Amino acid sequence: MEKINGLHSFKELSALFEERFNRRHFPLEPQQLYEASQYLLTVKGKRIRPVMCLMGNELFDAIKEDTYHVATAIELFHNFTLVHDDIMDRAPLRRGIETVHKKFGESTALLAGDVMLVVAYEYLNKISTEYIHRVLKLFNTIAKQVCEGQQMDMDFEKITDVNFEDYVKMIGLKTSVLLAGSLQLGAILGGAGLGNQQHIYEFGKNLGIAFQIQDDYLDAFGDPEKFGKKPGGDIMANKKTFLLLQALKVASTGQQEELKDLLLQDDESKIVRVLNIYKSCNIDEWAKQLKQKYFSVALKHLGEIAVRSIRKKPLEELANYLMERDV
Amino acid sequence: MEKINGLHSFKELSALFEERFNRRHFPLEPQQLYEASQYLLTVKGKRIRPVMCLMGNELFDAIKEDTYHVATAIELFHNFTLVHDDIMDRAPLRRGIETVHKKFGESTALLAGDVMLVVAYEYLNKISTEYIHRVLKLFNTIAKQVCEGQQMDMDFEKITDVNFEDYVKMIGLKTSVLLAGSLQLGAILGGAGLGNQQHIYEFGKNLGIAFQIQDDYLDAFGDPEKFGKKPGGDIMANKKTFLLLQALKVASTGQQEELKDLLLQDDESKIVRVLNIYKSCNIDEWAKQLKQKYFSVALKHLGEIAVRSIRKKPLEELANYLMERDV
Repeated sequence: MEKINGLHSFKELSALFEERFNRRHFPLEPQQLYEASQYLLTVKGKRIRPVMCLMGNELFDAIKEDTYHVATAIELFHNFTLVHDDIMDRAPLRRGIETVHKKFGESTALLAGDVMLVVAYEYLNKISTEYIHRVLKLFNTIAKQVCEGQQMDMDFEKITDVNFEDYVKMIGLKTSVLLAGSLQLGAILGGAGLGNQQHIYEFGKNLGIAFQIQDDYLDAFGDPEKFGKKPGGDIMANKKTFLLLQALKVASTGQQEELKDLLLQDDESKIVRVLNIYKSCNIDEWAKQLKQKYFSVALKHLGEIAVRSIRKKPLEELANYLMERDV
Repeated sequence: MEKINGLHSFKELSALFEERFNRRHFPLEPQQLYEASQYLLTVKGKRIRPVMCLMGNELFDAIKEDTYHVATAIELFHNFTLVHDDIMDRAPLRRGIETVHKKFGESTALLAGDVMLVVAYEYLNKISTEYIHRVLKLFNTIAKQVCEGQQMDMDFEKITDVNFEDYVKMIGLKTSVLLAGSLQLGAILGGAGLGNQQHIYEFGKNLGIAFQIQDDYLDAFGDPEKFGKKPGGDIMANKKTFLLLQALKVASTGQQEELKDLLLQDDESKIVRVLNIYKSCNIDEWAKQLKQKYFSVALKHLGEIAVRSIRKKPLEELANYLMERDV
C-alpha cells in the first residue's frame, strides 16, 4: 500500500508500533513471574489491535504520543487474555510455541496475566489528563466485555443447542469488541466527535464478526495449501462455530442426528462426514453471504464517518486485506 | 473509641464503608461470571484496607467522596487477590465458606478475579482529574508488588533455606504494601505532602510486618480459647513462618535435623515436637521482640507526620488494636 496524504499503511504502522513495543515491559525480579509475563510478547505478531488504535487516531489527526501508550496497553491486554484463556482451555500451544502455563506452570501464568493487565494500566496512566477519564472508561468497558464473552463461550461448551443470536453476541464480546474499541480509543485521541466514534466502533465490530465467520469458513473449506494447515480443526475439537450452529438448524432430521452423533466421536474420519453435511446444506454459501452481510454493514459505517474519504483508504485496505485473507 | 474532634473511629469508618460497599458491583449477566465476582464481597469483613484508606484521608482533612471510590477499588483489588491466590493454593475455604473456584469452578473463578480487578479500575476512574494520575500510579505499583510477593511466596515453597531478609521482603510485598498503600492513597486525597505521605506509608508497612509476626506467633503460641482455633495450623501446613525460619537458624544441629525431618511428616503429633523446639530456642520471646521492633518503627513514623497529634489518635488506636489482638 502506498502512502496517502501522509497517512500510514497498516504495514508501516505495524513496523512503527513493533519498534516501540519491542522492549522489556517488566522489571527483572522475581525472575519467573516477569519472564512469564514477557514471554508471549516477544513473539512478533501482526499487532492488529494496537495498529487499529493508531489507525483510529490517524483517520482524524496526526498520531499522538498518547496513542502509542494506549496501543501498548491494548496489546498487553490482548496478551493477558490469551494467557488466561490458554489456562482455561488447557491449550498446549500458542503462536507456535508452548503456552505460558505449559512453560512456567499454571500459578505463575495466572499471576503473569494479572501483572500484564496491571502494566497495561500503567501505560494508560501515561496519557494526558485531558483524555484519561474517557480512555479508561472505554478500556474498562471493553475489558469487562471480553471477560463476558469468554464466560459465554465456556457456558456454550456445556450446551448443544446454542441460540444463534446468543452466539453472535458471544463472538462480538469475545473478539470484535476489542477490535472496535481499539479503533474508537484511537479516534478519541484523534479528536473525533461522538458520532464519528460510534461509526468507527461499529465498523470494527462488524468487521470483527465478518472476520470470525471467515475464520470458521476457512477452517472448514479453506485450501489446505494456502491455509497452511489441515482443514477441520474446529470439527475435531467439537468447537461451536457459525457453520455448525447453522447446520444444526437447517439440516434434515437425519443429518441433525448424524451431526450430534459425530460430535461425540474422536475419530479423524468425522471431518469428512461433517463437511459433507455442511456442503449438502450449502453452509459454505450461507457463510460467505453472512460474512458479506457483516462486511457490508462495516463498510457502511466507515462510509458514514465525516472525514475526507481519502483518509479512509488505509482502513478500507485493512478491511479488504482481512476479508480477502486466504493464508 | 470515642469521636475525637470530628474524627471517626475505626468502627465508625468500617460501618460507613460497609454501608456503601454493601451493594452489587457487577451486571447481572453472564450470571455465573458475575455471581462468582460478587460472591466473596458479600461476606462481611473488617474491611481493614479500605478503612485505612479513609483514615489516611482523615488524618489530613475531611473525607472526600473520591476516597470512598478509592477505598472501594482497594477492597475489590484485595478480594481479587484472594480469589486468584486461592486458585493457586488450591484452598477449599475462605472466610468460613467455600472458595470461589470450589463453588464456581477454576475457569470462572479466574475470570471472576480478572473482572474484579477491572471493576476496581472503574471505581478509580470515578475520582477527580486532579488526583487520577497520582492515585493510579500508586495503585498500579502496589498491585504489581502484591503479585511479586505472591510469586516470591510460591518460589519459597520450593526451597528449604529461605534467607531471612528475602522472607521479610516477601511478607512486605505480599501483605504490608497494600496496607501501607491504602493509607498513602487516602493521604494523597487528603492533601498530604510527599514527606507526610512517606511517613504514613512506612507506618503501614512496618505495622503490617509486625502484624504478620504476631499472626505467626499466635498460630504457634496463642491461647486456643481466645484464638478460637487449635494452635499449629502453620506447622501442620509446613508453612514458612518467621518462627520456623528463625528456628532453622538458631537451633542446635540436632534440633535443625529434627525440624527438617518433622517438615516431611504429616502426623499431628509433630505440632508438639516443633513447638518444643521453638520454646527451647526461645523463639516465642524472639518473635515478641521482633514484632515490637517493627511496631516501634511504625509508631516512630506516625510520630513524624506533621499534623496535630490529636488527629493521630484513631491510627494509634488502630495500631494498638491490631497489635493487642489476641482473638
